Formats: sequence, structure tokens, C-alpha cells
Amino acid sequence: MKYARFGGRLVIVGFGSIGQGVLPLILRHIDLDPAKITIVTAEDRGRDIAREYDIRFIKEPLTRENYRRVLGPLLSTGDFLLNVSVDVSSLALIEFCRDRDVLYLDTCIEPWVGGYTDTTLSPSLRSNYAYREEALKLRRPEGAATAVITHGANPGLVSHFLKQALLNLARDTGLEVSKPAGRADWGELMRKLSVKVVHVAERDTQVPNTPKKVGEFVNTWSIEGFVGEGCQPSELGWGSHEKTFPPDGGRHEFGSGSAIYLNRPGASTRVRTWTPIEGPFHGFLITHGEAISIADYFSVVDGKKVLFRPTVHYAYHPCDDAVLSLHELAGKNWHMQPNKRLLTDDIVGGIDELGVLLMGHAKGAYWYGSQLSTAEARGLCPHNNATSLQVTISVLAAMVWAIENPRAGVIEPEELDFERILGICMPYLGPVVGAYSDWTPLRDRGQLFPEDIDNADPWQFKNFRIV
Amino acid sequence: MKYARFGGRLVIVGFGSIGQGVLPLILRHIDLDPAKITIVTAEDRGRDIAREYDIRFIKEPLTRENYRRVLGPLLSTGDFLLNVSVDVSSLALIEFCRDRDVLYLDTCIEPWVGGYTDTTLSPSLRSNYAYREEALKLRRPEGAATAVITHGANPGLVSHFLKQALLNLARDTGLEVSKPAGRADWGELMRKLSVKVVHVAERDTQVPNTPKKVGEFVNTWSIEGFVGEGCQPSELGWGSHEKTFPPDGGRHEFGSGSAIYLNRPGASTRVRTWTPIEGPFHGFLITHGEAISIADYFSVVDGKKVLFRPTVHYAYHPCDDAVLSLHELAGKNWHMQPNKRLLTDDIVGGIDELGVLLMGHAKGAYWYGSQLSTAEARGLCPHNNATSLQVTISVLAAMVWAIENPRAGVIEPEELDFERILGICMPYLGPVVGAYSDWTPLRDRGQLFPEDIDNADPWQFKNFRIV
Ligand SMILES: NC(=O)c1ccc[n+]([C@@H]2O[C@H](COP(=O)([O-])OP(=O)(O)OC[C@H]3O[C@@H](n4cnc5c(N)ncnc54)[C@H](O)[C@@H]3O)[C@@H](O)[C@H]2O)c1
Ligand SMILES: NC(=O)c1ccc[n+]([C@@H]2O[C@H](COP(=O)([O-])OP(=O)(O)OC[C@H]3O[C@@H](n4cnc5c(N)ncnc54)[C@H](O)[C@@H]3O)[C@@H](O)[C@H]2O)c1
Repeated sequence: MKYARFGGRLVIVGFGSIGQGVLPLILRHIDLDPAKITIVTAEDRGRDIAREYDIRFIKEPLTRENYRRVLGPLLSTGDFLLNVSVDVSSLALIEFCRDRDVLYLDTCIEPWVGGYTDTTLSPSLRSNYAYREEALKLRRPEGAATAVITHGANPGLVSHFLKQALLNLARDTGLEVSKPAGRADWGELMRKLSVKVVHVAERDTQVPNTPKKVGEFVNTWSIEGFVGEGCQPSELGWGSHEKTFPPDGGRHEFGSGSAIYLNRPGASTRVRTWTPIEGPFHGFLITHGEAISIADYFSVVDGKKVLFRPTVHYAYHPCDDAVLSLHELAGKNWHMQPNKRLLTDDIVGGIDELGVLLMGHAKGAYWYGSQLSTAEARGLCPHNNATSLQVTISVLAAMVWAIENPRAGVIEPEELDFERILGICMPYLGPVVGAYSDWTPLRDRGQLFPEDIDNADPWQFKNFRIV
Repeated sequence: MKYARFGGRLVIVGFGSIGQGVLPLILRHIDLDPAKITIVTAEDRGRDIAREYDIRFIKEPLTRENYRRVLGPLLSTGDFLLNVSVDVSSLALIEFCRDRDVLYLDTCIEPWVGGYTDTTLSPSLRSNYAYREEALKLRRPEGAATAVITHGANPGLVSHFLKQALLNLARDTGLEVSKPAGRADWGELMRKLSVKVVHVAERDTQVPNTPKKVGEFVNTWSIEGFVGEGCQPSELGWGSHEKTFPPDGGRHEFGSGSAIYLNRPGASTRVRTWTPIEGPFHGFLITHGEAISIADYFSVVDGKKVLFRPTVHYAYHPCDDAVLSLHELAGKNWHMQPNKRLLTDDIVGGIDELGVLLMGHAKGAYWYGSQLSTAEARGLCPHNNATSLQVTISVLAAMVWAIENPRAGVIEPEELDFERILGICMPYLGPVVGAYSDWTPLRDRGQLFPEDIDNADPWQFKNFRIV
């Protein structure tokens, strides 16, 4: 079924796991002319898939120097730029598109190559918080072509899960609510429900047929992307209920104030979390756009005073081989392994359990999200694994939204119509479940050894963190 | 070739990976009557292998209540008890053997089942330090039958590697030495060479043909044994050069004073270390007998005053699937996985790189040890992988030593004749290499983020530790 008609040209920048996975969804669900699609990417990866669909494939890595020259002839008013590359500045492309009235969609806010680990910048300045502030500065009061930022699975889809989860929680706790009209209402709802902490809690159990080799980084999605964000500082939306500022924490000297960072790579920062199938586990507190934008969006403020804000962060258990890859990478002091393997056809089992975990409310903890298996993902759409399909269907949904809302300017997931997005995504997410739990990060703590925990409030960040 | 004749009976308690692996070595290298061997174990595991060699197999788990009754008829003066079980008290068996003039050998000091995580005991009292003190108390001035404790690969073989490494280091730095005669001399030699830190640095790269499943603990040797010691406090010999006592450290109120402990499980404590093939990596600071006995043996003392002592500890990278298993176990707050898999025939590649890493001396860092592959191990002796063969050949060597020295009483690896032991072990260890390195735990540190390090002395424990 077609969700939208698009008459312009479409340029897809980058054609890795997400580009390859989203192409069949675009062709299936958007009424457009495939001859008007162009892929611009850095390597031959995916050339066979482009050929399968008869899509023009240009191998030319974009750089600070060449992007205007390369993209210029390919994009003008009414066209669409879908950025699913690594190492290409989102900010540069957003400006480029704005100046040309070209629709834009990105799944993160990416710097030019090396930006995530540019130590001439302070940790604060190489944070996603800083990138977001820069992106929001590109907003124009007079309006501009829609540029959806950070809209994959997470960041992206999870912000819509969160709204649905809040409504479910209201229903299940007997709170009468009408659907919130905007950010102030959503913040009020979250506050009324006493949600203190939101994790994006993800457990990827996908396994390949051949084990990880020494010196190989293995993952179910972009390895450069993951290593890049893993080497950025840990970042989290910093809730109004928090009593103890992290000893290694830092506050930004600019911007919304919704988030803080830790002076350490997310790839070395672990936290306790929970998903329905896995139960309790340790995830990595990798920085992600949603930790910052959700905390900001759901803040209840009175002028400059923050009356309520949730603590929000990612708690990510990537596939087992990626956990090993991070361990090896840390052992080499963040010098990248010589080899990389992005798992696709070699996956022999496993699921990606990805959702939001709302904590601190009357019913304790509530997880809402997708439990998609690779097997089911393959059946639903070619060239996808479980991880990529959760991203690509959300990209597709946001493309539809952008086509339907072409003059929204720079816009974040929380500002999109969550029901429209979820409606498009649902058929591709496998089981989407909500599950309550009496789990808290204090369960089974302090048994073998004394631990420094706050028993008075289980939902303190200090209690989640692994030290 | 036969290294010794033994006319008595031999009882092997436990018949897991080590028992099964050592049996063919005993039959090959000790001149004894197989009809005089009895296996006493808790399960059917290994029954087929016992049958292959025509060895009597009794399935009867030993307990506090039954061990005298079960073992009584099997052992009297001049016999040998080889303990390679889990969950059976070494102390109980040592006393039992001493009272009967039975030779004894153990690869660790094991408590009765549950002892390692008995939280009615303080961390200090469930440490290997405490178990060692108890074992040493069983010494009798009047002499007794030999009871070799903690003599596998590590603890065990590595203490002999260390002596050889010290002599190599003396040779390579032009220090004229005659072979030390006893512990005081060995301590003096280490001190003269300015060795400050000794790691038992091990990287196991063995991989199976099928990946670890969720809820499965996978390892290349005893899973109970590893989980048991992994849940004990981290322990380390505490060197005289250390400036900063660990914030979570504890000192014992009894005994030699050679070691300290950390108030946390070793399975959650990581340190930087180095081996020649792997290069730098993160290992787990799991408690081990050798950390305590080496630090004690090589101390230079003047009455009660410690003039010199090295920092000594294990820095263990178990096979990749075991790293994942620990990560999962920690995620469940040390509640054991429902399933276990001890890798044997399903290993498809990898090596066990196990040695001692001597640091702080004139040439920086020196690793000396074995780089044995599974493939080579299998060729050398049936029913072994790389990990087990390093253990079993050392068990065999110490059995030979005990037969040759039957009245040594309770005795530790450092007190055995290292050349005799190494001579027997060498043909089974694959490449045994010494390698110098300019690696220090400060290499590449503090690049992405500021780190709290001691730049004045790279060899401080604080610099090795991952926080
Ligand atoms: N929000 C989410 O849920 C989510 C999930 C997965 C991926 N992502 C993001 O999507 C992006 C793509 O992920 P992926 O898994 O497809 O990555 P990938 O590593 O599989 O592919 C990256 C692609 O970018 C191309 N590329 C690299 N340098 C380029 C350059 N200079 N110019 C043009 N193309 C270039 C590569 O050739 C490759 O085709 C990444 O930024 C990643 O962080 C977001
Ligand atoms: N020093 C070293 O280098 C080293 C290395 C490996 C193992 N070890 C030690 O050797 C021992 C054996 O290791 P493994 O890998 O063979 O272990 P394993 O788990 O493979 O086997 C343990 C054996 O003990 C038996 N057992 C369990 N409970 C028993 C009981 N109550 N009575 C009698 N037998 C019982 C089991 O049936 C099994 O046969 C462990 O204590 C381990 O810590 C030491």
C-alpha cells in the first residue's frame, strides 16, 4: 500500500545497512518514480542491491569540499535528501537543503569524519547535546522546508513509543486524560503519572553463524556509527528528582540545560536496566539524541524554572559479539580493530527487543516496545535484519510525514504526529508489547558485598549505574 | 617416558575437564598399576573416558558427612589422593590425608559447596587469603606426608615461570647471579631487578563452533570453579611501592599480610594488562592463590618490616564466550545462568596465552609463558583443550615431585623445585616464549577524556585498574 505520492527527485546519501534496508520500503510504500532516485555513497557496498532495483548508484564520498558540487546537480526545490551515511555533516546538509527548499531526513546528527573524537573540542562540544543545539539554531522563524532530524528507531521511533506508553499507563492506572495537545500537555501527563526515569532499554540477541574473530568489530548496524557514538561522552537527560550529581558529570554552559554528560565514553559506561524477555541486564549508556530531546520535550517549566524533568538515557545491550567488540576496543584504548563485520545474511537467530522503560510511577516499571526477530524481519522486507527494520520502517514513516508536512523546518521526533508514525510502523515491528514489572535497580543489590546505594529512592541514577 | 614409579593406590576426586585431561598423562608418565586407580566423582560426566582406560568409576558426591566413609576404604599409608573436584573442602581432605599418611595434591583450596559466596562470612573470611592461612595452619613441625596445594597452571605452573623469568631478566640485563637457594634469595633477586608488579596475564582465544546462547555460561574449564572464584572478592598481593590504597580495598586482620582484597567480586573488576600475541587488553582481576603466595614468597623482610614486596595479581581474559557469560551473570546480579557449557571437542580454534608479566624493571615489561593452541594440545594428549593441558601437565609434574618428595607436608608451588617441574611441563606447553615490551598501563591514556592517573609511576595499581 502507498502512504504518499512524491513527484520530486530523491537522493539517498550512504547505502549501508540502513540505506539498503530502507530502499525496498520506499519503493513499496511511496508512490514515486524509481528513475528519480540516486544513491550517493562512499563504497561499492550495496551496488548489487541498487542494481536489483535499478537505482542509479554514484560512488563518491562526500566531503566538506565536494558536497555542494556533488549534490548540487541532484537536488532542487521539492526534492528529497535522505541522509543515512556516516562521516557526513548533517548540519552542512540541512543548511544545503534549506537553501534549496529540499526536504531532508536524518537518523542522527552526524559530524564530518572524526568529529566524534575530535579532542581539540571539549567533551561538552563533541556531545550530541552540542550537535542538537547547532541543529536547532538552523530553524528559521519564517519557516523552511521540512528537515526531520534524528528519526530512526532510536532516536526516532522510541519517542512515539513513549507517548503511547504514557497513554497506556494513564489508562492502566485509571487516570482520566484527553490526548495531550502539545509539549506542555505531554510533560504534564508524564509528571502526573510520576514517571521519573525513562530508559531506552534495548537487548539485541542476534547471533551470526561464525564467531567474532580477534581484531574484528562485529555489529548488527553501522560499526563506524556505533564506535563514533560509543566514544562520545555518555549523555543523559537529567531529571528533577536526582539528588546526587555524578562525580564525573559535567553540565553544559549553553543550550536547553536538559541533559548532562559524563567525562567518559559511553562505550565504557554501564547501567542496570530491564526488558520483558531478557529480564534484568547491564546495558551501555551510549549517548543518543533522544536522551536529550525527550528530557527537553517532557520538561514542565515555569519560565526558567524546571518544575519537572525525567532522567532519560539509552541502556543498550548490543548483540553479544558487539559487547565483545566494545570490550576489545576498550582494551586497545579506543583504537579501532583492523577488521569489521556488519551482520546481515549470516545471522542465524535472535531478536532485537527495543522499547522505552518508564519507571517510578504507581505501577513501578513499564516497558513498551518491539520484539522483532531476524527471521520475521526477513519475511517482512528483504535486505533487513531485526535491528535495521526497526530503523528503516521509522525512516519510511518520517519520510511520509515530511511529504505530508513539507514546511515544518528543522523538526524533532517528539514534534511529529506519533499516531501517524506508529500506524505506518506497526506492521513491521513484530510483537509490540507493553509489560509491567516490579524490577528496580535495587533488586538483589548489596548481597555479596556492601554497595553504595540510595535505598530511599530506587530511581536515582546512582542506583542504575555500574561502578 | 616414565618420570616416577608409584606402588600405592591413587584416588582421583572429581572427573571434569581436569580429571579427564590428567588421566592419560598419569598413565603415560607415572609407572603405576591402572587397576589401583579409583575415580570418585559427583556425576556421570567422564564415565566413558574412565571406561576407555579401564579405570574404576564411583559416582558418589563427597559431602561433609560422607567423605570419611567414602574415602576411608580407598586410602591408607602410601596412597595418593588427587583432588580435582569442585565443592569439596580441600582442608578436610588435607587433614584426612595427613592423618593417614596419604600423599595429596590440589589445584586450588576449595571450600565445601557454597563457601565462596557464604555471606555469613565477611569478604575477608571468604577470600583465598583466608583459605591459604587455614591450609598453612595444617603444617606440622614433626613433618607429614606431602600435600601440594594450589598446583595447576595458575596457581601452580606460573610460579615456576616466574622464577625462570627472573633468571632470564637477570641474564638479559647483565646482572650476575647464582641461582637463588631459597625464598630470601628469590625475593632479593626480584628486588634487585626492580620488579614492582607481576601479573598472571592470560588471554584465552578459544572459540566453539556454536555461539553462546542466552542463559548459558560457557567456559574452557570448570564453570562452577570460575563462577565461584569470580564471586569471591578480588585479591592481590600488595606491593611495597604502592602509594594509593584502593578506596574499596580491605586489609585482613590476620595472617601474613601479603595481600589485600577489594570489596567487590573479581568478576566485575577489570585491569589493563598485556600479552605478546594479544597486545594490550582488559583482564579480570579474579582472586587466585598465586597472587597471595607469590607476594608472600618474594617479600624481602627484616623481622616484621617489609623491605620489598611485589604487587601480584591475576589479569584474566577468559575465552570470549566466558567474557559474555560474566557480563550476563553480572547483569543478573550474580544469579547463575540456568545452563552451562564446558568447551571441549566443540572448540574450533584459538589458543591459551598464559604467562607472567614482570613490570617496573630496567627493560620495562617482560612476559614469559605458554602460547598453546587447542589444535596442538589435542595432538599432545587426548581429552584436553589448550587450557586444561596447561593445568594437567602441571598437576602431573607436581605428582611426580610429591612421589619423589613424600614427606614435605603442606607445600606451595613456590617451594617446589621449579626446574624439575618446568622440565616435565615444557614438552606440553606449545611455544614457551619470553617477550619484552615498552607497554605500560599509561599508554594511550587520557586522550579522549581526562583520567585520574599517576604519571610519576606507571606501575601503581591505580593505573592498571579500569574505573
Ligand atoms: N536512529 C537510529 O535508530 C539509527 C539506527 C542505525 C543507524 N543510524 C545511523 O544511520 C547512519 C547509517 O547507518 P548504517 O547502519 O546504514 O551505516 P553503515 O556503516 O552500514 O553504512 C554507512 C554508509 O555511509 C557511506 N558513507 C561513508 N562515508 C561517506 C561519505 N563521506 N559520503 C557518502 N557516504 C558515505 C558508506 O559508504 C556506507 O554506505 C549512521 O549515521 C547511523 O548512526 C541511526
Ligand atoms: N590451578 C589451576 O590452574 C586450575 C585450573 C583449572 C581448574 N582448577 C580447579 O580444578 C578443579 C576442577 O576443575 P575442572 O575444570 O575439572 O572442573 P569441572 O567442573 O569440569 O569438574 C568438576 C568435577 O568435580 C565433580 N564434583 C562436583 N561436586 C563433587 C563432590 N561433592 N564430590 C566429588 N566430586 C564432585 C564433578 O562431578 C566434576 O567431575 C576446580 O576446583 C578448579 O577450580 C584449577
